[in-house]
Amino acid sequence: MYKDATAEEIDVIMQEAWKAFHAYRKLSLKQRADFMRAIASEIDNLGDELLKVTGEETNLPEARLRNERARTMFQLTSYADACERGDWLEARIDTAVPDRNPPKPDIRKMLVPIGPVVVFGASNFPFAYSTAGGDTACAFAAGCPVIVKGHPAHARTSEMVALAIFKAAEKTNMPKGIFAHVHGAGNEVGEALIKHPFTKAVGFTGSFIGGKQLFDWANQRKEPIPVFAEMSSINPVFLLPEKLKQSVADVAKLYAGSITLGVGQFCTNPGLIIGLESDGLQTFINSLGEEIKKLAPAAMLHPGIFKNYVEKRANSLSQPDVETIAVSETEPQLNQGAPTVASASGQAFLNNPVLHQEVFGPYSLVIRCKDMTEMINVVNNLEGQLTATLMATETDINYHEELVEAIKNICGRFILNNVPTGVEVCLSMQHGGPFPSTTDSRFTSVGADGIKRFASPIAFQNWSNDLLPAELRNENPLGIWRTVNNQPAKETL
Amino acid sequence: MYKDATAEEIDVIMQEAWKAFHAYRKLSLKQRADFMRAIASEIDNLGDELLKVTGEETNLPEARLRNERARTMFQLTSYADACERGDWLEARIDTAVPDRNPPKPDIRKMLVPIGPVVVFGASNFPFAYSTAGGDTACAFAAGCPVIVKGHPAHARTSEMVALAIFKAAEKTNMPKGIFAHVHGAGNEVGEALIKHPFTKAVGFTGSFIGGKQLFDWANQRKEPIPVFAEMSSINPVFLLPEKLKQSVADVAKLYAGSITLGVGQFCTNPGLIIGLESDGLQTFINSLGEEIKKLAPAAMLHPGIFKNYVEKRANSLSQPDVETIAVSETEPQLNQGAPTVASASGQAFLNNPVLHQEVFGPYSLVIRCKDMTEMINVVNNLEGQLTATLMATETDINYHEELVEAIKNICGRFILNNVPTGVEVCLSMQHGGPFPSTTDSRFTSVGADGIKRFASPIAFQNWSNDLLPAELRNENPLGIWRTVNNQPAKETL
Repeated sequence: MYKDATAEEIDVIMQEAWKAFHAYRKLSLKQRADFMRAIASEIDNLGDELLKVTGEETNLPEARLRNERARTMFQLTSYADACERGDWLEARIDTAVPDRNPPKPDIRKMLVPIGPVVVFGASNFPFAYSTAGGDTACAFAAGCPVIVKGHPAHARTSEMVALAIFKAAEKTNMPKGIFAHVHGAGNEVGEALIKHPFTKAVGFTGSFIGGKQLFDWANQRKEPIPVFAEMSSINPVFLLPEKLKQSVADVAKLYAGSITLGVGQFCTNPGLIIGLESDGLQTFINSLGEEIKKLAPAAMLHPGIFKNYVEKRANSLSQPDVETIAVSETEPQLNQGAPTVASASGQAFLNNPVLHQEVFGPYSLVIRCKDMTEMINVVNNLEGQLTATLMATETDINYHEELVEAIKNICGRFILNNVPTGVEVCLSMQHGGPFPSTTDSRFTSVGADGIKRFASPIAFQNWSNDLLPAELRNENPLGIWRTVNNQPAKETL
Repeated sequence: MYKDATAEEIDVIMQEAWKAFHAYRKLSLKQRADFMRAIASEIDNLGDELLKVTGEETNLPEARLRNERARTMFQLTSYADACERGDWLEARIDTAVPDRNPPKPDIRKMLVPIGPVVVFGASNFPFAYSTAGGDTACAFAAGCPVIVKGHPAHARTSEMVALAIFKAAEKTNMPKGIFAHVHGAGNEVGEALIKHPFTKAVGFTGSFIGGKQLFDWANQRKEPIPVFAEMSSINPVFLLPEKLKQSVADVAKLYAGSITLGVGQFCTNPGLIIGLESDGLQTFINSLGEEIKKLAPAAMLHPGIFKNYVEKRANSLSQPDVETIAVSETEPQLNQGAPTVASASGQAFLNNPVLHQEVFGPYSLVIRCKDMTEMINVVNNLEGQLTATLMATETDINYHEELVEAIKNICGRFILNNVPTGVEVCLSMQHGGPFPSTTDSRFTSVGADGIKRFASPIAFQNWSNDLLPAELRNENPLGIWRTVNNQPAKETL
């Protein structure tokens, strides 16, 4: 439907982005924020027509799309607010001490934009992690031009949102080249974008194979660049004994809902539930099975994802020692993923790397550990995860400190008595975790701290006040928080 | 003199470091800080014997070693203060909104230590960037155990400082395995350390070839880890016309001093001085030459560095269109580097990548550009640098905005009317820059912000107050600055 961008087109786009970078970074924080707010408003203006097109392309129901669109607009406007508030700049000032021997110079540091950012649209979030999604919003807030490669599974949606960005850019007088949108069904477009010398960072949400390939290309460049790829996570949930005893039915119901939310197509879907072999765990397994049977299959994002789900699920279920607990009792239609839960022993899990792999869809595996030592062993053999969840009473936690400490090593977000699905957009959110859940556990892709992914510090030494950027001037014209001689301060110097 | 660590020894060390990591991260910020202060005090206790040994191993004069030791102790104690102050934790709290639909959970985030850190001692800073240097201090502050591979050129110094760290660890009851010290003249020890699964980050200061090798090894691991390598930088200095007119003799004298400081063995040594072809520039070249002739050669750190200087200098001087301006008039003794300055046209520099390479020692190349367009072209073709310096009046700067903007793209620290040598240890310092000056321009290796290199965030969702780390509790028992519902605050919640 859309033509792949050619190498020549990509070069022209990157040249323009490089020019735009120099113009855009000189605009004020307020101008950047106004551009972002204008994008939110242009997306709103697309109205129900956008929801209709996206629904056709992704099979996502209208209510979900409405929510996701609202979230996307909230990201744009709340990161715009954060951009203006300026905490993310990490402005630091150390004033001169001329009579020290040797004299101490005046030094002032802040984060500045890193350069043009390439963003790859995600298939499972056609709005919130695609064309005008979190990565794009963070990059614009940081002061970077953005080049989006639209996801081929929702290319029309991507085109519509891209047009909204272009309109907002025009209305707020942004420099030409501040945004570009390309299509590319094959690998060549992505490779050309990542290897272009004017590309300075990459945002990606998708598969491990895709993300790892971008990471490797980026590191093989003459000048390596950072890649923020969110890749794969099975989001382990740990069920502790007292908690199960107290509320097994509630936990089973809660998790049946979380496993099947959005047809299991969330990166924080709980794909692994780990408990201690016991009557309580058996009751949980039975209850979870009963809940899952009642839940209906639903259409997945696109035929490729459906095919992948069917194959991965079958592969997992056919592994030695894996028993199917329950499958939805409703017959699935074409492209519908059937809710499924299965179970295996701790030993089987420890012996079989296949069981560590993500089965993207409404599927979860319950692991029965023979004792706490085995459960800790499972944690120590788990790959890095976006989230880990503990279903536990305070007594459980106090009795199993070693388990709790081990879990801290493998996740970016640690949830207590709740579900991992539902990622709040706020400053304290960490959406990122040890490899392979993401390529850089030091950063988040949700929340305004994600702005810092696309910035790096520069220190100005011995510059006179009127030559400094507004953010670092004595009079603090922007009224931002800065660290002055080691103390947070908002005052004039 | 010392035996290389074997693969088996390294495995034992890393197992112990991994255990120590779990114990050490539970200690309070104050306990970490007290350990760091104890290290400073044990280094002090080594007295003049340390200076004597290091002087023998490095040829560095006593006054320099005294200063460097004081700086090393200041790093330890000032990063200890920063560790306790806790700003680096980036503590963020978003409180619950239970009556929102859906309810907003309580989420709290902070940086936690990343795991055992391997530090490679630097040859040019036997104290400040070696065994108990900046990387080690930052890692201890972050909550990470440290494994140092001592630099073979000052192995005895490294042993002595390691013993001081062991003594401090014992006196402050640190867990076994909090620190380890190994020797390794060949590549094998470094490779085994970096590839060990319990190694979680790497600090390095040295050559491009060395740093790039570590970076590649780290990225080829099953679980890639961050490498903070400071590698090579020629620290360009830009001379603008009005400034030269006003104070050519002063600038020449200032730079003759900076080029030869510490026998040119600083990573911020100005190896490139760029001006516009003019009478003013010719006067500068003549004056610089006169100054350089008067300065005496001095012994370099070790025979390998001396040999490298002689070869690289000869190679640079033999390139087409390169003219020697001046060499020290004093005959150098064995292992002494002779101060040397040379000159080439902007065109020659643009055509010849050899002239972009660092000549580690008291050597600088003056580039004569035919006009401002060529000077900007030189900037756009320069590799990433730790520093760039502008010698300019306010008028110069206002007239040449495009140049100033281009320079911002290639450096981590931007100095005005000063020299790049002399790196202040303070929070606003940025010692890091675009590749290849460092492998990660988003972080600094000098100043307390360097602590953040060895930490990554974890978010706690829905935890009750008494189960949270002290840093995130309502009552703020540590009295640290936190961002609460988007506002910096020190108050109790």
